[in-house]
Amino acid sequence: MKELSETLDFDIRFSEVDSMHIAWHGSYVLYFEDAREAFGRKYDLGYLLMFGKGVYAPLVDLRIQYKKPLTYGMKPRITITYRPTTAAKIIFDYCIRDSADDSVIATGYTIQVFLDHQHKLMLYNPPFYEAWKQKWLQ
Amino acid sequence: MKELSETLDFDIRFSEVDSMHIAWHGSYVLYFEDAREAFGRKYDLGYLLMFGKGVYAPLVDLRIQYKKPLTYGMKPRITITYRPTTAAKIIFDYCIRDSADDSVIATGYTIQVFLDHQHKLMLYNPPFYEAWKQKWLQ
Amino acid sequence: MKELSETLDFDIRFSEVDSMHIAWHGSYVLYFEDAREAFGRKYDLGYLLMFGKGVYAPLVDLRIQYKKPLTYGMKPRITITYRPTTAAKIIFDYCIRDSADDSVIATGYTIQVFLDHQHKLMLYNPPFYEAWKQKWLQ
Amino acid sequence: MKELSETLDFDIRFSEVDSMHIAWHGSYVLYFEDAREAFGRKYDLGYLLMFGKGVYAPLVDLRIQYKKPLTYGMKPRITITYRPTTAAKIIFDYCIRDSADDSVIATGYTIQVFLDHQHKLMLYNPPFYEAWKQKWLQ
Repeated sequence: MKELSETLDFDIRFSEVDSMHIAWHGSYVLYFEDAREAFGRKYDLGYLLMFGKGVYAPLVDLRIQYKKPLTYGMKPRITITYRPTTAAKIIFDYCIRDSADDSVIATGYTIQVFLDHQHKLMLYNPPFYEAWKQKWLQ
Repeated sequence: MKELSETLDFDIRFSEVDSMHIAWHGSYVLYFEDAREAFGRKYDLGYLLMFGKGVYAPLVDLRIQYKKPLTYGMKPRITITYRPTTAAKIIFDYCIRDSADDSVIATGYTIQVFLDHQHKLMLYNPPFYEAWKQKWLQ
Repeated sequence: MKELSETLDFDIRFSEVDSMHIAWHGSYVLYFEDAREAFGRKYDLGYLLMFGKGVYAPLVDLRIQYKKPLTYGMKPRITITYRPTTAAKIIFDYCIRDSADDSVIATGYTIQVFLDHQHKLMLYNPPFYEAWKQKWLQ
Repeated sequence: MKELSETLDFDIRFSEVDSMHIAWHGSYVLYFEDAREAFGRKYDLGYLLMFGKGVYAPLVDLRIQYKKPLTYGMKPRITITYRPTTAAKIIFDYCIRDSADDSVIATGYTIQVFLDHQHKLMLYNPPFYEAWKQKWLQ
């Protein structure tokens, strides 16, 4: 099975750092989201596609482990990797590294489920997602 | 040992909801932070106190599990509970409920460690935190 | 004509302050939004009502003048005042004061127009807004 | 006198759009900030430099005029232009355009003043800024 991933370099905004010049822990949620959108663009699995299919894929689980501070002026890089599963879920793993020395700044994951247009949990993968898995994972 | 907790009612901003009128998953980081600040005010364990002591307490672990959607117009309520530990950490558990029927919207936790004024990890509790534990937990 | 206004006390989040312990200038947009929502609740002019009427009221103009720094630990208070106009617009004025000495921290305004459900600019007030003005301003 | 400007392409986050798929008006403050940081990198006038000089340059005035909606999927582009002034201020003008047809989405400006390390307003330009103007504007 192929590994699907995408890597993004990003800058820290001055407004994201606190009084220690360290990026706010909540900003990582945005970094993860940016990575997810970049993945969606690369592998054609974006929000607009899902909307067009009448499917909504909210997060049900989010975890972030902070390993070392991300300070203003650093050049961080985030890698998002698709974690294959047979469950009706989309799971991504994330790793943020300092591009200067490749040291790990943070890791984490997100789990998304599928809701139909009536906001009901879908117990099986929607057809477009099955087709997507066929196309990219085999 | 006493259980230390604080409960806050809060409103969802219209700018926090997405196209499904559901609060953005990243906003929960702010709800947790507001709860942590309210706890700090109630039990005298705030950021300014720590700064005065030359101590910085960054998050090293954050987890949020989303159980049901939080929609615009709901009246959510968050409870933060201090989780006792012998490690040199501050651990909080969180639970967000719908005040209309007390159903659970989300749960989660945060773990903080202590850094000294040189940003080095403190392996033992700083004295002010030991004193705080003596005062409130016994 | 009556003056319609609402006043809110609020707290500054630690995550909103920068390295000088001063609230980020962008946070004021949220303070204004919170004031607008409180006004909507008090005078029955909220987003959900407009949506129910098929009307969208986006901002077309925003101005904020910062008079003195808002620092962590201050107790700010925001007043929103409806500015009457014959144009098909909703105009609000805002004033943020330090509740300790009533000094002015910031002032500003927002101007909103009406779009119909096809996103076209409405040149005349929608009926629900005319009725609202009749009810509250006379 | 030379015109100093910088232009950035940017993406809209899904979390920034509201229920009409339109970017939240508050996000523009971040777009302006990103443009200001890019300008600072290009012309060597960044926050870290100022900090090193003991100078803080907070915003005292912000205005944004929204001309047409910025929707998810659009490819916006922001241009920031330095507006020369003899006053002890930094003034920038901003213009956000749709790169598809070059139509204007929003315009605005920011005005910053200088505070010294005691947070007192500086009535004259700090030396590093005078030197910067000499270097870039003549």
